[in-house]
Amino acid sequence: MKQKTPKDSLTIMNELVLPNDTNPLHNLMGGRLLHWMDIAAAIAAQKHSNRVVVTASVDNVSFQKPVKLGDVISIEAKVTRAFNTSMEVKLDVWGQNIPSGTSVKCNEAYYTFVALDEDGNTVPVPELIPETKLEKALFDGALRRRQLRLILGGKMKPHDATELKALFMPDIVG
Amino acid sequence: MKQKTPKDSLTIMNELVLPNDTNPLHNLMGGRLLHWMDIAAAIAAQKHSNRVVVTASVDNVSFQKPVKLGDVISIEAKVTRAFNTSMEVKLDVWGQNIPSGTSVKCNEAYYTFVALDEDGNTVPVPELIPETKLEKALFDGALRRRQLRLILGGKMKPHDATELKALFMPDIVG
Amino acid sequence: MKQKTPKDSLTIMNELVLPNDTNPLHNLMGGRLLHWMDIAAAIAAQKHSNRVVVTASVDNVSFQKPVKLGDVISIEAKVTRAFNTSMEVKLDVWGQNIPSGTSVKCNEAYYTFVALDEDGNTVPVPELIPETKLEKALFDGALRRRQLRLILGGKMKPHDATELKALFMPDIVG
Amino acid sequence: MKQKTPKDSLTIMNELVLPNDTNPLHNLMGGRLLHWMDIAAAIAAQKHSNRVVVTASVDNVSFQKPVKLGDVISIEAKVTRAFNTSMEVKLDVWGQNIPSGTSVKCNEAYYTFVALDEDGNTVPVPELIPETKLEKALFDGALRRRQLRLILGGKMKPHDATELKALFMPDIVG
Amino acid sequence: MKQKTPKDSLTIMNELVLPNDTNPLHNLMGGRLLHWMDIAAAIAAQKHSNRVVVTASVDNVSFQKPVKLGDVISIEAKVTRAFNTSMEVKLDVWGQNIPSGTSVKCNEAYYTFVALDEDGNTVPVPELIPETKLEKALFDGALRRRQLRLILGGKMKPHDATELKALFMPDIVG
Amino acid sequence: MKQKTPKDSLTIMNELVLPNDTNPLHNLMGGRLLHWMDIAAAIAAQKHSNRVVVTASVDNVSFQKPVKLGDVISIEAKVTRAFNTSMEVKLDVWGQNIPSGTSVKCNEAYYTFVALDEDGNTVPVPELIPETKLEKALFDGALRRRQLRLILGGKMKPHDATELKALFMPDIVG
Repeated sequence: MKQKTPKDSLTIMNELVLPNDTNPLHNLMGGRLLHWMDIAAAIAAQKHSNRVVVTASVDNVSFQKPVKLGDVISIEAKVTRAFNTSMEVKLDVWGQNIPSGTSVKCNEAYYTFVALDEDGNTVPVPELIPETKLEKALFDGALRRRQLRLILGGKMKPHDATELKALFMPDIVG
Repeated sequence: MKQKTPKDSLTIMNELVLPNDTNPLHNLMGGRLLHWMDIAAAIAAQKHSNRVVVTASVDNVSFQKPVKLGDVISIEAKVTRAFNTSMEVKLDVWGQNIPSGTSVKCNEAYYTFVALDEDGNTVPVPELIPETKLEKALFDGALRRRQLRLILGGKMKPHDATELKALFMPDIVG
Repeated sequence: MKQKTPKDSLTIMNELVLPNDTNPLHNLMGGRLLHWMDIAAAIAAQKHSNRVVVTASVDNVSFQKPVKLGDVISIEAKVTRAFNTSMEVKLDVWGQNIPSGTSVKCNEAYYTFVALDEDGNTVPVPELIPETKLEKALFDGALRRRQLRLILGGKMKPHDATELKALFMPDIVG
Repeated sequence: MKQKTPKDSLTIMNELVLPNDTNPLHNLMGGRLLHWMDIAAAIAAQKHSNRVVVTASVDNVSFQKPVKLGDVISIEAKVTRAFNTSMEVKLDVWGQNIPSGTSVKCNEAYYTFVALDEDGNTVPVPELIPETKLEKALFDGALRRRQLRLILGGKMKPHDATELKALFMPDIVG
Repeated sequence: MKQKTPKDSLTIMNELVLPNDTNPLHNLMGGRLLHWMDIAAAIAAQKHSNRVVVTASVDNVSFQKPVKLGDVISIEAKVTRAFNTSMEVKLDVWGQNIPSGTSVKCNEAYYTFVALDEDGNTVPVPELIPETKLEKALFDGALRRRQLRLILGGKMKPHDATELKALFMPDIVG
Repeated sequence: MKQKTPKDSLTIMNELVLPNDTNPLHNLMGGRLLHWMDIAAAIAAQKHSNRVVVTASVDNVSFQKPVKLGDVISIEAKVTRAFNTSMEVKLDVWGQNIPSGTSVKCNEAYYTFVALDEDGNTVPVPELIPETKLEKALFDGALRRRQLRLILGGKMKPHDATELKALFMPDIVG
């Protein structure tokens, strides 16, 4: 199976915030954004694995800036690390108010996906080789994020999370 | 402001999984479920605060069981703790295949919301008084989950998270 | 086939009224509500029969109170009586304006469904055993409502509707 | 206010049955059809009144023939009678399977609408003058259907329904 | 294969302009209208061919008048000429503001469709026999429009377009 | 007003083809694609003008390759030339079947948009300065395409279309 780089899976999505996507204050609803992010991330994971993929988990997402009706949501998704049959995808999301020329970072998030064959069984995915310095940092951080996911999902005991000793260091979110 | 109990905000939502909600293997897409969960949780937070609310964050969600086209998604949402102007809502989600009579727990999640007035400014919300043993455990755990959110969001330094010392205890997900 | 009670089929649905659900006066359109009611009632009929079901009829529905954009529609559906291969489902619908704390009954309705097997043929459904006083009254009234449906559908001659002699009594709608 | 005829309000709607409109047996769901019928009938009532209109009631609708994925739903709506501020609209609905050249009548229904001004208050609507023999029969039957609606809605006592004495005659369905 | 006339394929569609169909100035978005036009035209082409059809091309469409939220879009589609396995459909589109009683022509367009059998292979379609004077003019113009399509699609050299010599005559758009 | 280059308006959109976007042969419907293309092109025109924009016209579009359910549509949009208050946007569209690793060019198209101020009046837009050889060729061709649009829209007499003398040259589609 051919190795791949993060840029092989780069997926860009732009969406217009329409009335049904907003609450009574005309702000984009968080759940609608999580839905778009899932589709963008799934396309990135498909590009890496050339397989049908299913969402396995979403890490903590926080919404800091309101996005308004008529704004454009711009999402960039890239695979950060491949495990045996799963992939972690990082998403960066901006809200652009084009008439005023402003663009604000809305949030960042990590989604993980599992690759499936036509019968719905999990299948191995290609290895990911990070290239840039940032990609390497994301690749390294993926192990710690994975341990946190396993602990939060009740599948790993905290004292077995040797990689997670970095938790109480400022770079946990990196 | 009148105190409220978790059952004051209980919100039940049932949704039928339709074709556009599924991937090519006919499984419900994770992002669609996150969207429904956001709406159910927002209604619960509205019931607690009697205010318009906006999603502030979503904690780690993992998707364990596939839900199929034609299944019924059943969501229960309840406020677990109120902070000054924000509320944590716990969601329990089941997928029911009614013809076969099966119902599986799909996932649990915590969403947080901020209450806003008509001008979009944050406003205080009523205090939440837990009643049952489970509600009290969720109420207590909310502090630790909040600290984890602040650390993951880069707003708190890990060594200040005094409540989070419980992180490496099995009850972190409780 | 195991008998069932009305509470076995109880289905609760909460939906947020979004812009596309409303007319230019920002009131929920009747047809959108009929659509949600059909889904809630179909889930209830599925729960009773453990079968795929199709809508056979909708009784007279009147819309008395306007429901506004941003309100929450709350629907409760329960099977009231099972016939050979069909079921009558009663729906109670409220519109809640949560910020103002008001909740108004919007309407009540009866939908009927037919149960089908995988080939699309009608199949018998379990018997329904009413438990409470109200459930028994609804169970009894179901016969009269059924005769009215048959007459209105041109499938029964009025003078054969022996049960419908109660029509000119105030309890016809019960 | 200028009188109008039924053909002034004639509204034709054709819709393609798409996957999300169908149940797991690939039949059009009843609620989706009720939603389309409401929009077609509302347009007809708007044409008669030149006002914003809201749905007041739907009479008994029965679904006799299944309509399949890919079929074309064809709806014709026409005002049958105007009352003071309300209008009754008759709908005739066909399902067409175009490749096989078949077209079946799916159902008939009566929706009623109320006309509103810009402030949401009810306003008088033009008189309707039926022209053809069928239009006159529908115009006459409208009084009886209205009494049945009022009785079923709990707003008229059965013994006051003088026009409804025709109920037990075959022409009740109009 | 039985010949057909334009009125055999006449398809009328009325759609209500809802919030999600509009831009921040509350005008109907062009793309939404092109989508509705495609569905109306596809139904017309299906009626002519009694086959599943796929869109082959859309000719130049210009949008002259804004259509507002709450207006009714009224589309009429009719086959103008059949070629071997394809059909040209003409669309006339009006926007009606019913409360004010105004109706403006929004645009005209030509879509072409190819007929397919169950395996997705192209199949011959019936001949079209125009009846009225206008239908005959549209039938004649179809040849020139087809040559322009082939040239614009890079499939015909301009100097082979013998029929297109009429291009520089005013009736090209006819 | 600051001049802009084509890359200032580059907009990339990726969309997953879902069941409701397809016909009974599971091919993406042309109208759905035209709708997505309109949104992508409108975002590009907004980026160039920093204004609300409305679609003025769509040039001839032909659909050559079927796109299947589950494929990913990838759209790139860029402004090719600015006129006084309007902009031409070129779209390139690919359909990707990711599991099989294939990507086919589906079509190319030109949409034009008009820029509006808050009151809906047309406003001047910045000049576009093409940079690459391809951008310059598109910039030059824009004049001829504009004359063809005006002729097809009945707003210019063919014999006034001096730039369109190139029509019968092979580079008309460039």
